[in-house]
Amino acid sequence: MKKVVVIGGGTGNFTVLSGLKHYNVDLSAIVSMADDGGSTGILRDELGVLPPGDVRQCLVALSNSSRLMRSLMNYRFENGGLGGHSFGNLLLSSLEKVTGSFEKAIEEAGKILSIKGKVIPVTTHQARLKMVLENGTLLEGEGQIYTSKEIEKGYKNIYLEPFPKVNDRAVDEIMNADLVVLGPGGLYTSLVPILLVEGISKALRETKAKKVFVVNLMNRKGQTGNLKLSDYLLEMQRFAGKDIFDFVLINNRAPPEQLIKLYELEANLVENNLTNDKRIILADLLSDETAEYSQSDVLAKHRAFIRHDSEKLARELMNLVDSL
Amino acid sequence: MKKVVVIGGGTGNFTVLSGLKHYNVDLSAIVSMADDGGSTGILRDELGVLPPGDVRQCLVALSNSSRLMRSLMNYRFENGGLGGHSFGNLLLSSLEKVTGSFEKAIEEAGKILSIKGKVIPVTTHQARLKMVLENGTLLEGEGQIYTSKEIEKGYKNIYLEPFPKVNDRAVDEIMNADLVVLGPGGLYTSLVPILLVEGISKALRETKAKKVFVVNLMNRKGQTGNLKLSDYLLEMQRFAGKDIFDFVLINNRAPPEQLIKLYELEANLVENNLTNDKRIILADLLSDETAEYSQSDVLAKHRAFIRHDSEKLARELMNLVDSL
Repeated sequence: MKKVVVIGGGTGNFTVLSGLKHYNVDLSAIVSMADDGGSTGILRDELGVLPPGDVRQCLVALSNSSRLMRSLMNYRFENGGLGGHSFGNLLLSSLEKVTGSFEKAIEEAGKILSIKGKVIPVTTHQARLKMVLENGTLLEGEGQIYTSKEIEKGYKNIYLEPFPKVNDRAVDEIMNADLVVLGPGGLYTSLVPILLVEGISKALRETKAKKVFVVNLMNRKGQTGNLKLSDYLLEMQRFAGKDIFDFVLINNRAPPEQLIKLYELEANLVENNLTNDKRIILADLLSDETAEYSQSDVLAKHRAFIRHDSEKLARELMNLVDSL
Repeated sequence: MKKVVVIGGGTGNFTVLSGLKHYNVDLSAIVSMADDGGSTGILRDELGVLPPGDVRQCLVALSNSSRLMRSLMNYRFENGGLGGHSFGNLLLSSLEKVTGSFEKAIEEAGKILSIKGKVIPVTTHQARLKMVLENGTLLEGEGQIYTSKEIEKGYKNIYLEPFPKVNDRAVDEIMNADLVVLGPGGLYTSLVPILLVEGISKALRETKAKKVFVVNLMNRKGQTGNLKLSDYLLEMQRFAGKDIFDFVLINNRAPPEQLIKLYELEANLVENNLTNDKRIILADLLSDETAEYSQSDVLAKHRAFIRHDSEKLARELMNLVDSL
């Protein structure tokens, strides 16, 4: 059975894992430990636990348990002292407290959720993501970086503090993989924070695995600004190593004009400016659920309309796996 | 297979169920829904859910899952907005929110914990336990009643408000039982609140099942004061019906003097003043773990030293079952 390792965090990671789960592959997710916003941030501060948020999303994506169990994991308390916490985060943090180990907590939660594959934190040490902007401002924590509108104007440095020791299991997974999938996901909030952990980029350069970069659909304004595909590749290579990717998978179907308009103030499409690069694989990766959402779900207006389709994405990735 | 129904709440109920779980019986626990203290009270107030605390304890008692899962259910958060909540309570309340039904929540939690038997709330309607003391003071809620030191001076009335509809499943369980076990447990905080639900006492009178009352070891000062066995029976009969019990099971081994002394200010032994009652079964029901606890576990000084042994209790109850 071919071994696929998925690197990322957030919704992008969720989409890739949800799709690949249905195929006959040995699947591992390596997850960023930089999250410190919302419920996860409160749990880190109040309980001193490692950040459960991204791990929870991966577990749900890989879960073969009932729809109810998956809804339970994502259930968010609305009122009082519990307000904002998702049940799954509380499960992981309680398990960490009871077992004394975050990895053991993930393993036990994985059993409860009957997951396929493995979820591996890139480090099991506490570290904060920090970024120094071009104008000298220090952004402390992934939460601050995520909400900043100034990053597109340039940054001087991005780093983890204290500098965390890599989880050896994450390195082993990469070394033994057939395919490593990087992205989609927040460049500075999911992807780079994983590459910043010492040992990850080395493993990516040394592994016999093929590496595929799944390019984001959209640039969030203030964050990745107007980065084009070539800029993404340069930025990823800066942290992962030169010519690190064997394949670059990018969507080539234009979303409906009206959706692009809806996004206008917040985000714009990532432009493919590399037509002659042999690594590039063009495919329709766009979810068709968007139209429905815009009609019925008011909340969805604040969420991603224009997003990857997990089935289409998985099919393209499996084509790669089968070609290895 | 004989059918045993256990009625109560709190630690007493936990002890009975933990013991009976190991025997080949069809086991059901009918649980009080009057709890409104601590974590349970906050969840009722903030989320509008039914009280999870006593249900959680029954689920843990009946669980065949790992020690870790049982520890997880009882894990209490220590800090911040989550402080005081037990994980198991949050699981039940989240499941109630996600499924829209407290009974469905219990069923799902029961699956996660691989429980033997059933846990059935006596009602699925919200109600508060209230008590009017002899001096006219109104105690609102089981939490207030539990901490009152004035109850032993007498009370005028105890009732549920609003008057809740009984859970038909609880009535069915009693009607189809071979043995119904009442107690041990808080007289005014666990046992009477169940008997107050209309339909329960009627079922107890009409069922073909034998009924056994397991007498508490201790009277808490200010609560049941100096009630003797005869007083307990009169008080139980007031709510459940005259001559309701076929058997009365009471411990006859004296605890060590030093333990009784440790309790002196808070509690005293329940005296058996009915030597000629044929319903009475005398047995050594005392836990021997007490001595160890007093040496090593500082916290245990504030907990029950003098308590029932779940194995001894279960053995006596199974003798009854086998004689039916």
